[in-house]
Amino acid sequence: MTHSYFTGDREYFPGIGKIAFEGRESDNPLAFKFYDAGKVVAGKTMAEHLRFAVCYWHTFCAKGADPFGVDTQMFPWDEPVEEMRAARSRMDAAFEFFTKLGAPYYCFHDRDMAPEGENVAESERNLAAMVALARERQDATGMKLLWGTANLFGHPRYMNGAATNPDFAVVTHAAAQVKAALEATVELGGENYVFWGGREGYAALINTDTRREMDHLARFLHAARDYGRSIGFQGTFLIEPKPMEPSKHQYDFDAQTVIGFLRHYDLADDFKVNVEANHATLAGHSFAHELQMCTDAGLLGSIDANRGDPQNGWDTDQFATDLYDAIQAMLVLLADGGFGSGGLNFDAKVRRESVDLEDIFIGHIGAMDTFARALEVAHALRERSGIVERKQARYASFDSGDGARFARGELDLSALRDLALDSGEPETLSGKQEWYENVINQYL
Amino acid sequence: MTHSYFTGDREYFPGIGKIAFEGRESDNPLAFKFYDAGKVVAGKTMAEHLRFAVCYWHTFCAKGADPFGVDTQMFPWDEPVEEMRAARSRMDAAFEFFTKLGAPYYCFHDRDMAPEGENVAESERNLAAMVALARERQDATGMKLLWGTANLFGHPRYMNGAATNPDFAVVTHAAAQVKAALEATVELGGENYVFWGGREGYAALINTDTRREMDHLARFLHAARDYGRSIGFQGTFLIEPKPMEPSKHQYDFDAQTVIGFLRHYDLADDFKVNVEANHATLAGHSFAHELQMCTDAGLLGSIDANRGDPQNGWDTDQFATDLYDAIQAMLVLLADGGFGSGGLNFDAKVRRESVDLEDIFIGHIGAMDTFARALEVAHALRERSGIVERKQARYASFDSGDGARFARGELDLSALRDLALDSGEPETLSGKQEWYENVINQYL
Amino acid sequence: MTHSYFTGDREYFPGIGKIAFEGRESDNPLAFKFYDAGKVVAGKTMAEHLRFAVCYWHTFCAKGADPFGVDTQMFPWDEPVEEMRAARSRMDAAFEFFTKLGAPYYCFHDRDMAPEGENVAESERNLAAMVALARERQDATGMKLLWGTANLFGHPRYMNGAATNPDFAVVTHAAAQVKAALEATVELGGENYVFWGGREGYAALINTDTRREMDHLARFLHAARDYGRSIGFQGTFLIEPKPMEPSKHQYDFDAQTVIGFLRHYDLADDFKVNVEANHATLAGHSFAHELQMCTDAGLLGSIDANRGDPQNGWDTDQFATDLYDAIQAMLVLLADGGFGSGGLNFDAKVRRESVDLEDIFIGHIGAMDTFARALEVAHALRERSGIVERKQARYASFDSGDGARFARGELDLSALRDLALDSGEPETLSGKQEWYENVINQYL
Amino acid sequence: MTHSYFTGDREYFPGIGKIAFEGRESDNPLAFKFYDAGKVVAGKTMAEHLRFAVCYWHTFCAKGADPFGVDTQMFPWDEPVEEMRAARSRMDAAFEFFTKLGAPYYCFHDRDMAPEGENVAESERNLAAMVALARERQDATGMKLLWGTANLFGHPRYMNGAATNPDFAVVTHAAAQVKAALEATVELGGENYVFWGGREGYAALINTDTRREMDHLARFLHAARDYGRSIGFQGTFLIEPKPMEPSKHQYDFDAQTVIGFLRHYDLADDFKVNVEANHATLAGHSFAHELQMCTDAGLLGSIDANRGDPQNGWDTDQFATDLYDAIQAMLVLLADGGFGSGGLNFDAKVRRESVDLEDIFIGHIGAMDTFARALEVAHALRERSGIVERKQARYASFDSGDGARFARGELDLSALRDLALDSGEPETLSGKQEWYENVINQYL
Repeated sequence: MTHSYFTGDREYFPGIGKIAFEGRESDNPLAFKFYDAGKVVAGKTMAEHLRFAVCYWHTFCAKGADPFGVDTQMFPWDEPVEEMRAARSRMDAAFEFFTKLGAPYYCFHDRDMAPEGENVAESERNLAAMVALARERQDATGMKLLWGTANLFGHPRYMNGAATNPDFAVVTHAAAQVKAALEATVELGGENYVFWGGREGYAALINTDTRREMDHLARFLHAARDYGRSIGFQGTFLIEPKPMEPSKHQYDFDAQTVIGFLRHYDLADDFKVNVEANHATLAGHSFAHELQMCTDAGLLGSIDANRGDPQNGWDTDQFATDLYDAIQAMLVLLADGGFGSGGLNFDAKVRRESVDLEDIFIGHIGAMDTFARALEVAHALRERSGIVERKQARYASFDSGDGARFARGELDLSALRDLALDSGEPETLSGKQEWYENVINQYL
Repeated sequence: MTHSYFTGDREYFPGIGKIAFEGRESDNPLAFKFYDAGKVVAGKTMAEHLRFAVCYWHTFCAKGADPFGVDTQMFPWDEPVEEMRAARSRMDAAFEFFTKLGAPYYCFHDRDMAPEGENVAESERNLAAMVALARERQDATGMKLLWGTANLFGHPRYMNGAATNPDFAVVTHAAAQVKAALEATVELGGENYVFWGGREGYAALINTDTRREMDHLARFLHAARDYGRSIGFQGTFLIEPKPMEPSKHQYDFDAQTVIGFLRHYDLADDFKVNVEANHATLAGHSFAHELQMCTDAGLLGSIDANRGDPQNGWDTDQFATDLYDAIQAMLVLLADGGFGSGGLNFDAKVRRESVDLEDIFIGHIGAMDTFARALEVAHALRERSGIVERKQARYASFDSGDGARFARGELDLSALRDLALDSGEPETLSGKQEWYENVINQYL
Repeated sequence: MTHSYFTGDREYFPGIGKIAFEGRESDNPLAFKFYDAGKVVAGKTMAEHLRFAVCYWHTFCAKGADPFGVDTQMFPWDEPVEEMRAARSRMDAAFEFFTKLGAPYYCFHDRDMAPEGENVAESERNLAAMVALARERQDATGMKLLWGTANLFGHPRYMNGAATNPDFAVVTHAAAQVKAALEATVELGGENYVFWGGREGYAALINTDTRREMDHLARFLHAARDYGRSIGFQGTFLIEPKPMEPSKHQYDFDAQTVIGFLRHYDLADDFKVNVEANHATLAGHSFAHELQMCTDAGLLGSIDANRGDPQNGWDTDQFATDLYDAIQAMLVLLADGGFGSGGLNFDAKVRRESVDLEDIFIGHIGAMDTFARALEVAHALRERSGIVERKQARYASFDSGDGARFARGELDLSALRDLALDSGEPETLSGKQEWYENVINQYL
Repeated sequence: MTHSYFTGDREYFPGIGKIAFEGRESDNPLAFKFYDAGKVVAGKTMAEHLRFAVCYWHTFCAKGADPFGVDTQMFPWDEPVEEMRAARSRMDAAFEFFTKLGAPYYCFHDRDMAPEGENVAESERNLAAMVALARERQDATGMKLLWGTANLFGHPRYMNGAATNPDFAVVTHAAAQVKAALEATVELGGENYVFWGGREGYAALINTDTRREMDHLARFLHAARDYGRSIGFQGTFLIEPKPMEPSKHQYDFDAQTVIGFLRHYDLADDFKVNVEANHATLAGHSFAHELQMCTDAGLLGSIDANRGDPQNGWDTDQFATDLYDAIQAMLVLLADGGFGSGGLNFDAKVRRESVDLEDIFIGHIGAMDTFARALEVAHALRERSGIVERKQARYASFDSGDGARFARGELDLSALRDLALDSGEPETLSGKQEWYENVINQYL
């Protein structure tokens, strides 16, 4: 790992150099306390395990506006008035930030990187120009693209959905954007391509033909998959579940809904799930639950690492700093063998009131430290605490004998009933939940 | 419709006769204001459309206890001390209530009808005896069984799950109960058999092998299906989704989760979904949404009609009196052609403070009136308001031409993109949500 | 009521005239089905009871942007590029809308009506100019101002609060805005002045001195009250509770919190509560509950009539169309003798997808019809159904004898205990909740 | 601290001795890893800071029943059939547990300790007999009573409320219970007396006179206060807020509601607030928020330490193991100078599936370790991290000059406006939330 970093014509984060690992005792807010990229845990370096990515939209495009107030974060890369010039200064700021932070990956939507044009052709040209520059920057810095995607929710044309819009004309525009975004992803060596169904859902059930819209969504995804493969995309397609917001109800409600959709529409060979922590919360699930449902199905693709506010009912996209959530996530991930093409993308933003330039670094550092520490704790829990063995032992009655025959489908209902008659009342066995909870705290 | 009703050795609801339709102006709390069983709406009588069922558990077994207090509802059928005698007096009360109310169906769990014995064999004998009596009562009264089920959550042995219990011995006991309950259902001519996954889920993810448990659940359901068919059960098997409670997380979280499960484990030919309104609310869905997801999949089986409290986060199982929810439900149901073997089962209980015997009638009357009125409003909305036509017109661009070709999968991504390039920016089209909302109120 | 309406230099809603009452059978979406302004109910006209107000912000300023997408509603009054010209065309559109709709009142924030200037003085001049025009329009049309307020949350300076900002310099700017907005309210004959604590709360408890901030808020309100009274404001000051959003936590959480605050800081003689339905929902209360808490305290001031989405956790500000909520609200209001200086302000917006000009009318018509019908139903329930008498009878044991002595504080704990010893176990008395619910449906 | 412990005629927890501090590396589940009672932190021992109490109800009376299933936890002290004998064996088990665990305090309801009799007099005798035994046990072991209370929610007579029951006869029974429970508390040297308003609220607003009920509640509390003082109770009366459950809505909704109530009804000199973590969650607040509101008002009395499940909407009463919540709580408590007469009572129960006797110890050990560690972390954060200084510095503009004059009420609105005019636009200042969050993780 080099200590060099990229700057363009202008240094956008002056006074901040390469973020270093200084350890837990450091009082430098701009240093890692736990994330030591090259440190080996469970046979791989932290960097190899965690595959951190910075997101382009929150970090370089959003400026703090919310439904009740305008932008608060006025950053120097937004100064150029002309849109393509602003796009280039934003890209310089982005690569400076990526390389100073030391995250190996980034993610983007088409419209984060290049402005929408007057028409489809101009939009394509804008994107192509910025992709060429990004290619150059990647080559110069070694940065890699975790995934690309298309913003199919911001423009007014998508107010009633993109692939699920009741108006076919809108579907064609969504297709045009996805085609260009797939090309950009291939050009930049992206390891995945993401669909987050921003407005694929409904505002009102009563005016919506949900069956028809979901059929259209499947058609659209087949077309995108086929095109991606045709231009050489070897990576994974990902669906990111979210239950609501901006729509009242979104079709990709949660992991199980998406898994069912992918299997039903014959997409599960090419598509996996991109789990976002905050979206899990909004759906009434824990983050770890959503990850577990995906690994159970062999369909965990990647992670959008952030968190919501436990007292607020919308997508706050805060940086992940809850060690419990991160440890539970790492336990699921380690049990599954870790990421394939996926990674940990920080789909997170500093609070609207965090208007200092350094706050963006502080937010990312905190989240990277959280997952690094969680990785170490989860590994130790798996190796030394006994939680893995205790859980396995709970199911021992299915490992052999009649239990195993049942699990293989070899016992019918009458046979099972006869066993019950013979064996008498079973003993109740403690779930030991309090013991598990205490052990996690002990290893934290 | 006859004005006779059943009473056993003792009349349990003295002073209350057959509940009659008296119309909206009646001030008799023990009369129907809207439910006129023989009235024809959309080609069928109200009774044929709504297929009301009374549930045995809330109405005759529960007595008002909650986590903070003991029973408050002391009813005369609970007076016998000996359990089987109490079971018989409860059955007499039940058939008196069914026939006075005029609901054509009822539903039960094995343990509602007959007490658990000292062992499997005694439990089976108890149930068989009560089923024989129920058969007699059905024959005498014309009452029918909408569905039967087994209580696989009340006994301590099921604290860690029934079919998904980590201990195989418990699974065998669950099988014994289901076997007997299936036999009872067949004996009583039940039109459906329900699985509500009471504790099929987890209290803590960390001690649970969710993949193994869900595989076991599927094995169990296959075995139950095979046994049911082997003894002549021709009806529909039903899964009832619920997201949580009593478990922290239940596997049958919501309709989409269950639909995905049924398809993945090859159960969708025999199983459908039993949607409960209050469970929809707990899962973050509207009642109508859950119904719509099922009809989209061709898997709507039956309905547990009740409601939750919008400010409380548990299963309050109140009688359904919200006309909006009922109208939206009827709109989905009428669009789907109405019930097959399913019906509207009142999985609802009077409040703990409703300790008068008549309150049980009042609760049921209110819910039956609600659905009867909702049926009329929904039919009128479909016939006269224009909502059906307006919704269809929204999708006209897919009815022919390129839109239809897309819907058939005949256009690839490049072709779609070219259409976007050619057609230019589409117009944004109002969703007219406020118009729909006003029209519903107008027809209410 | 006249059939004339205002138009300025341009008619902004061509093809839409004065909205008329056409009754329930009309299929004209631009007519009232239930709101018949001059119809007498319980001794007053509907218009006198309901005192409807249109809000300036959602109806004329907001354009459909949400956190995931830009404006969708492009209306002709926004065409002028120069800000003060746009403000004038917006005001023309507003008065045209007010008078075509036939709502007698409106409400506004300073920044809705006039753009923020380069500095305090320019902002004051802008507002004064627009207020002069509004005065002229009011005189010409007979429109009245229900309340004025200042927008203390949109500008970046208020990101950490206005009166509760940790930086005194921001507090002075908030004071400048309130001073000007009070003057505007007096000039326009406003009957109330509202404080909604947009960002008076915290994003993080750990960086916040909540005690100090609440003390500052009280100081600020005292200063505003004193100034208002000094310039001749005779109306009511109002606080509008909201639990969260945009802040993580807002100080004016709910009605009880605000009532406690007003009493503690000696503000309850001049201030009352402005209850918003959607804010009640977000706080975990029913709309009627919040109203009841206020009338119990003699502190109900006014109502922001809207509703949230029961499945979404943010402030959706939809038009109120739920008759149950409206009936419950009207029951509380009628029991309290109706509005004093308050009214029903539609703090509501059409959905982002409702892009037709007529949708704004349709939204308002639906809500006005809802409250008009609810008024009639609530009055009938109070007069004829027996709900008032039944509730009173429940408390009869406190009307005389020992119960009345207890209520007057004349019985000590020992005396009460002795009564219990003597009287023995009391009977449990049914709450009859199901009866109340059925009666509401019967009268609906 | 002695290593001896109490056992009665029978040892109820054989094989488990006095729980010792063994430090973080111990793999003994029945040892403290962090709680070292005599260790000095911030000038006091851990035991002096934390004042742990064990609750009688969950730990010795509850047996695992929930709304969907019967008891699962069959413990030896429940074996006696005769109620008073069972009460005595339960008390022996309790004191054995208290002294083995090493918590210095306990808490109880009247009905936890002694069974309800046939009438008021017998109930009083039962309680008096058990109190005499408890007095003996306290003297023998050094155990102390943190608080006593009366169970005014379990018996059917209280189904519509106790002090707020619409039937005066029920109020007298509540008074009888409180009188006896106050006497018991005084006899046992209880340092506080608690009112948790179990069913003081409503199931339905429409049948409830909330104003009258709250007036009655205040009368009742005055009578209880007067009686307590008259028999020598010197401690603090406490109200415990809860927003709902078992009632749909409870009057003591949250801390601010209770604070407003106490002030309005002139009770704030004798009453303080007992904050329960899980109740805070149900009310939409963080635990720390509720504590902060109380310390701001000078009304924090005591704490019921537990936690809810973030995905479930009812009172799960789990043992507190979330270090974040505990640290935030300790930060508020240390800033307020620590407990007076209050303490940390574990109003928590092991999960229904935790059926081993040792699970009760494991649950308590985990929670005690959590708060001990949180105490150390919070103290270190306050001493060394800079969070205290940074927060104070945020408000520096109010420490002197015009800001201080405003805070003293010496500047009117015009003066404030003139300051804004003069000073121009203030700079926006970062709230630094991400920095605070990272620092907490660093010190954890």
